Order: sequence, then structure tokens, then C-alpha cells
Amino acid sequence: MRIVVDAMGGDFAPQNVIEGVIDAIKEYQVPITLTGPKERIEEELSKYKFPKDLIEVIHAPEVVAMDDPATVVIRQKRQSSINVGMSLLKKEGYDAFISAGNTGACVAAATFVLGMIQGVDRPGIGCVFPSLKEFTFVIDVGANTAAKPEHLLQYAKMAKVYAQAVLKRKNPTIGLLNIGEEECKGTGLEKEAHKLLEENEPNFIGNVEANEVYTGKSDCIVCDGYVGNITLKVSEGLVESMGKLLKREINKNPVSKLGALLLKTSLSNAKKSIDYSEYGGAPLLGVNGLVLIGHGRSSPKAIKNAIRAAKEEIEYNVLQKIKEEMVIHG
Amino acid sequence: MRIVVDAMGGDFAPQNVIEGVIDAIKEYQVPITLTGPKERIEEELSKYKFPKDLIEVIHAPEVVAMDDPATVVIRQKRQSSINVGMSLLKKEGYDAFISAGNTGACVAAATFVLGMIQGVDRPGIGCVFPSLKEFTFVIDVGANTAAKPEHLLQYAKMAKVYAQAVLKRKNPTIGLLNIGEEECKGTGLEKEAHKLLEENEPNFIGNVEANEVYTGKSDCIVCDGYVGNITLKVSEGLVESMGKLLKREINKNPVSKLGALLLKTSLSNAKKSIDYSEYGGAPLLGVNGLVLIGHGRSSPKAIKNAIRAAKEEIEYNVLQKIKEEMVIHG
Repeated sequence: MRIVVDAMGGDFAPQNVIEGVIDAIKEYQVPITLTGPKERIEEELSKYKFPKDLIEVIHAPEVVAMDDPATVVIRQKRQSSINVGMSLLKKEGYDAFISAGNTGACVAAATFVLGMIQGVDRPGIGCVFPSLKEFTFVIDVGANTAAKPEHLLQYAKMAKVYAQAVLKRKNPTIGLLNIGEEECKGTGLEKEAHKLLEENEPNFIGNVEANEVYTGKSDCIVCDGYVGNITLKVSEGLVESMGKLLKREINKNPVSKLGALLLKTSLSNAKKSIDYSEYGGAPLLGVNGLVLIGHGRSSPKAIKNAIRAAKEEIEYNVLQKIKEEMVIHG
Repeated sequence: MRIVVDAMGGDFAPQNVIEGVIDAIKEYQVPITLTGPKERIEEELSKYKFPKDLIEVIHAPEVVAMDDPATVVIRQKRQSSINVGMSLLKKEGYDAFISAGNTGACVAAATFVLGMIQGVDRPGIGCVFPSLKEFTFVIDVGANTAAKPEHLLQYAKMAKVYAQAVLKRKNPTIGLLNIGEEECKGTGLEKEAHKLLEENEPNFIGNVEANEVYTGKSDCIVCDGYVGNITLKVSEGLVESMGKLLKREINKNPVSKLGALLLKTSLSNAKKSIDYSEYGGAPLLGVNGLVLIGHGRSSPKAIKNAIRAAKEEIEYNVLQKIKEEMVIHG
């Protein structure tokens, strides 16, 4: 097993990426290949002690900026850390690619370089949301902002396999994100997707509303990438702002400060269960290779957890299982 | 001044509605008209002591269920508490209507009975979200799920007036909800709306991402009703689940229980600033009358705060100000 990591992905690259990689090889003993400007990576690596045989560096002179348009990356930055890393997956011995870089560029490069799995038209980014029933797996959170009903059906099938294989949920249920429970609700997309899912996906339980992402009404939720991205970002913003707001209130009052001290364990446990970095990268499903996309602001811990997630995807043979599901039921 | 309240609106009507109304007349001395089945309302009112001259009951024999389709309500339930209440606004002396009932029915009845303001094509529901800079006013959170670019421009103009008149924000800035800051981001709707806003709205500051609802990057945010509704519901679900999760963690540990006790004031202050019931009803803007829509699960406190919000809208002459803005800049 070998996992390829984009050394230049994310707002704090290569520092955070390399720190996370070092932590991961120590904890999981998994061989890592880093892509990016060789000199820059080796300079960063020289700060750490680690088993040298577990890290390989492959030179990629170009770096994709967070706001580079995806098409530019595909056409003009072929020697970028994203493209070079993605291309390695076509070779024997490279099993997954992780980038916390430009999401649009990753999706475009994955589609262009790896191609699609048979039976899938568009890739989708899956994301594990914390819920009162442990988690909800939501797909798509931003790869495909012009989803068609059949894409949502394909996402449902891939989500089912992922939730079963990686998240260990038996016979996962699927919900369709909508603004009401009744099947007449939503735009044309949701109405048609509801019909298609009902006819073709036995685990479909109907529409679920956005608050139910967190109550865990269904194990998986499918939606258009635009709406899924909004769902993810609203959640991130709210959690961050609530934390700041609470700190502000606590600092106003010495009794509260003592209370916060005593509450530390519970607060940090609760925080852990809503902390996105605990879940690692988001799987890009539908492309012919294992690709995980990290948050642009990925901490070293988030990178380490993305490597753990990639390792699990490889061990559980998710790619092969999705291919089989799509061929059988496609 | 007189405010009309749908006695039968919401999951806990008429009990919660009437309790909230009683609290409001005691606190604000504002005359209220209740619409709904007269006998049922009077039975509920008989539980309280209050100045009789401040409450009028107008009989409306029909009740709209939370899942009645809007068209049915308009065509077949003309004697419902929503329709009867809305019609009162066309008479002299009735200044605002509040319902925590079926949102779709309220929007349809308002459009049908009151008509639109000149220069506005579709009504939009505004919602005050808490933020690190006090609040963000988001419109539309669910009235119009097939928004066109020009609707978003109209929402921007109305939001500006509302934020200025009611929320006391000087020269409020407007953002367009999108999945990225760059103007090339989003679907066709956002791209066209970006152009239209840039050309016609001097207070437009560009795209804002969904996390920025809570950081307060812009004072107002415009969006399609489908996406706005998802934003609202995700937030509600997350806040509720986080609360439950924290309680669960605290109950595991006696030290944490003590900590929570000491933290009580800070937690309740923080909760207050993210508690939707504190903000009262959501204004339905664009129709020719003051209409506020409450949450289906409205508590008596939420009803009371909706009455306070309606009172402020009347005092600040919001309807007239919006009409002037739309005529001048329409």
C-alpha cells in the first residue's frame, strides 16, 4: 500500500501537510509519496526525524493556487502537484491520492486523468457529518453544482457502498435533501430525483430536511453539489462562531471561567464529535481511483486523519465495491 | 395600532399562540385581533386574566393544516384563520398579520389577498441570523424556490431598507450567497444576479460564502429560497444537536455537571444570541402589507417576540419605506 499526498495543497502547505504526513507514518507505518517542488519539500522534511524508507518525493514543479480556475489547471499546469499526484494512481503500487488544495482543480484533474467508473456520469464529494446517531454521510458537497436526477441516484448507490464498507453501517438508509418531507416539495431536480430513487433504490426512505443531517434520520443523504456545499459551509461557520461567542461570554465572568475549566473534558469530547478534522478528507466518489479532498485550512491532524481514511478505503476495497455496485445495479 | 394574529398557526396552536399574545399585551399594551374558531379561542382565553379591551376575536371556522398544499388553502379554505386574518389588513386600523402556521399557505394567501408592492415580482421571507457582528439578515429563506436574478436584486433593495429601518444598521452592505467568492462561481442564477447587483445596487459587496452568514461579512445576504431554507434548517438542526450532545457529555461526569452549573449564565447568554425565538417572526417582504411568519414550533416567547417585531415594523413604517425604495430605484 502507498498513499500519494499533494505536498502543496491547502492554505498552510507545505508545513501542515508535511507535519501531518510525519505524524501519520509514525502512527500507521504507511508509505507516503509526496508530490510538489522537490527542494521545497525536502527542506521542510529536514525539520523532522522519520523512517526515510516510508517517504518518497516526486518532483512536480508547478503549484495550483486556491483560486486558479479548474480549466487552467488541466490545460496549463500539467506539472502541478495535483496532476502529477493524480497520474501516479494509474501506475501499479499507488493506491490513493490526497489533496487539501483547490477542490475544483482536484475534481477536474481526477475526472480528466482517472476517468469515470462505468455507470457514473459525474463525480461527487462525500462528507461525513457528525449526528446524534454518530454520523450522516452527505454526497455531493461541491463537485457537481448542476446535478441531474440520475446523478443523485448514482450518488445514492455509491454512498450506500461507502457507508457500508468504510463507516460500517449495515444496510444504510438513503434520504434526499429537500425543503419538506412531502414528495411534491422542492425544485424540478428533487421531484424527479425522488421518483427515480423510489423506483431504483430499495434503501431510499424519502425526503429529509436539512436539520436532519444532524439528527441522523437517514444514514446517507444525496443532494446537488451547490446545496451540499452550502450545508457544509453553514455548519462550519456556525460551529466556529458559536465557539467564539461562548468564549466571549465565558471571559466576561470569573465564575464562568472556573466552570469552563471543570467542563473541559466534556466540551472537548463534544467538540471532537463535531470537529471536521477528526474525519479526515472527503472522498471524491465516481472517479476511477481513490481520491480524498481535504479542507483548504487543513491542520496537521486533518492531514493525518485523511491518511487514516485513505488507508481504510484501500483496506476495505471501496473502489472495487463501488464498481461492482454500479455494474450490477447501474 | 392593531396586530392580527392567527390563533391556529403552529404545531402547538392555539395554546402557545394565546399564551404569547397574553404576555405581549401585558408587556407592550398593543391591541391584538385573533383569528380562528371563536369558541375554541375563547375557551383558551378564559384561562387567563387580561385587559379585555386589548383582545378582539374574529371568527374563522376553517383551519389550515401544516401540510395542506398552498393552492388548496387559497381555493378551498377561504374562511381559514390565515385568509381571514390576511384580509383584515386591507381594512383601516389593522396594521400587521402574524402566523406561525403553514408557511406556503401564508405566502400564497399574502400574495393573493394583499398583492405585490410595485416593483417587486415575488415575495421573500427575511430572517435575522445571529452573527459575530450581531446579526445577518438573510432573504429569501423559503418563499420563492425558483428565484430569478431580478428577484435577488429586489430582495437586496428590500433587505437594505429593513436592515436600516428595523435593525438600525447604517448603510447596510449586501452580499450574494454563493459557493465561492469569485464572480465566476455558482450556477447561472448567481452569475447573472452578481452582474445585476453590481450594476444596480451600490451597497453590494460581492459573493459571500455560507460560513459568512455567521461571521457577519455583510449585513444582508440575498439568495434563492431553496438554498436559504436549507441554510436556516441546517443551522437549527446543528444548534439543537450540539445542545443535546453537550448535555449527554456533561451528564457522564460529575465534575462537568458542577462546571455546567457555574457556566449557566454564560451558556444561557450565548444560547440567547443564537436562539431563533428571541428574534420573533420572519418578515414576508414584497407583499402589500406587513406579514410575519413564525416558526411552526413557536413557543409562547417566540409569539411574543413576533408581536414585538411587528410593532417595530409598524412604528418604523417599513412598508412605506420599502414602497418608496422600490419606486425610486425600481
